[in-house]
Amino acid sequence: MKYCPNCAATITVKIPADDSRERHVCEACGSIHYQNPRNVVGSIPIYGDKVLLCRRAIEPRHGFWTLPAGFMELGESTSDGAARETFEEAGAVVDIGPLYSLLNVPHAEQVHLFYLATMKTPNFSAGEESLEVALFDEQDIPWNDLAFPTVKQTLEWFFADRASGALNSEFHVRSRDVLRTEKI
Amino acid sequence: MKYCPNCAATITVKIPADDSRERHVCEACGSIHYQNPRNVVGSIPIYGDKVLLCRRAIEPRHGFWTLPAGFMELGESTSDGAARETFEEAGAVVDIGPLYSLLNVPHAEQVHLFYLATMKTPNFSAGEESLEVALFDEQDIPWNDLAFPTVKQTLEWFFADRASGALNSEFHVRSRDVLRTEKI
Repeated sequence: MKYCPNCAATITVKIPADDSRERHVCEACGSIHYQNPRNVVGSIPIYGDKVLLCRRAIEPRHGFWTLPAGFMELGESTSDGAARETFEEAGAVVDIGPLYSLLNVPHAEQVHLFYLATMKTPNFSAGEESLEVALFDEQDIPWNDLAFPTVKQTLEWFFADRASGALNSEFHVRSRDVLRTEKI
Repeated sequence: MKYCPNCAATITVKIPADDSRERHVCEACGSIHYQNPRNVVGSIPIYGDKVLLCRRAIEPRHGFWTLPAGFMELGESTSDGAARETFEEAGAVVDIGPLYSLLNVPHAEQVHLFYLATMKTPNFSAGEESLEVALFDEQDIPWNDLAFPTVKQTLEWFFADRASGALNSEFHVRSRDVLRTEKI
């Protein structure tokens, strides 16, 4: 941020009074422009024993597989956003279940939230941001061709929890921080 | 947003190509300035049978009681932010436990996340944003003087779950959307 979005004056980076962090401050109009992490909301769409994945038609990670997910929009809830992204990217209508995983990605200034989701029908189709969409059995998951560490970790937790029976009862949200150095 | 933070040209509100929503677009430099909800992260600090609350020294809701919470900062995780806010507002050092509640506040463009937290010692003190800080037994919670619906709902869930024993085992994150019309 170089210029004030309110008045177009040049921004100063400084620690405001009563604060302890550097902020983008406009000395002309007095506004402080805070910056905060963004939420990426998505789902684990389940049909029987299978999970629905999308192959990305956009950067970053064009051509790699992901759970349907995207940036949360103003005016929606986390779960509504997860259902919206699942429909937009994978053409699938889902019943959103409990929040399953929360992964912090501090270096990307993001929080990734994935909900368990049940597909009402086996219908799906590639949206504009997907090259293809497909249902996968656990043994067919393209582990080396996944798009993001948060997707890989969520799927690893999911299959382990499904095998142990943990998904059939209450569970704490699975959560950890992702490091900048993590690769697929 | 009236002016482009990158180049100070006047912003146009329009639906970009390959998008379905109005965005703040700069026709001069081509940048799109997305806006997304912000996370408010906090804790339920527990010492024995008591919960720690702060009376707000700032607007909104000056003088009303809240769980320690505040906007998540860039570069931190949700749980680190919750611990930081607990220390800044209440002077309490806590061990952060599992995520307990996630409340969407779409009209405020916020998501509120509260973690269970154990106070290591009974030490606490009012930070700059608090008039006073105190430990409360359930029967002494100032229900009519709480600052926000998300705090009230989280405390209601917490005491119900503590009474039922639900807190002693795994649980799904407690979650709902808060309506604009809700009052304390």
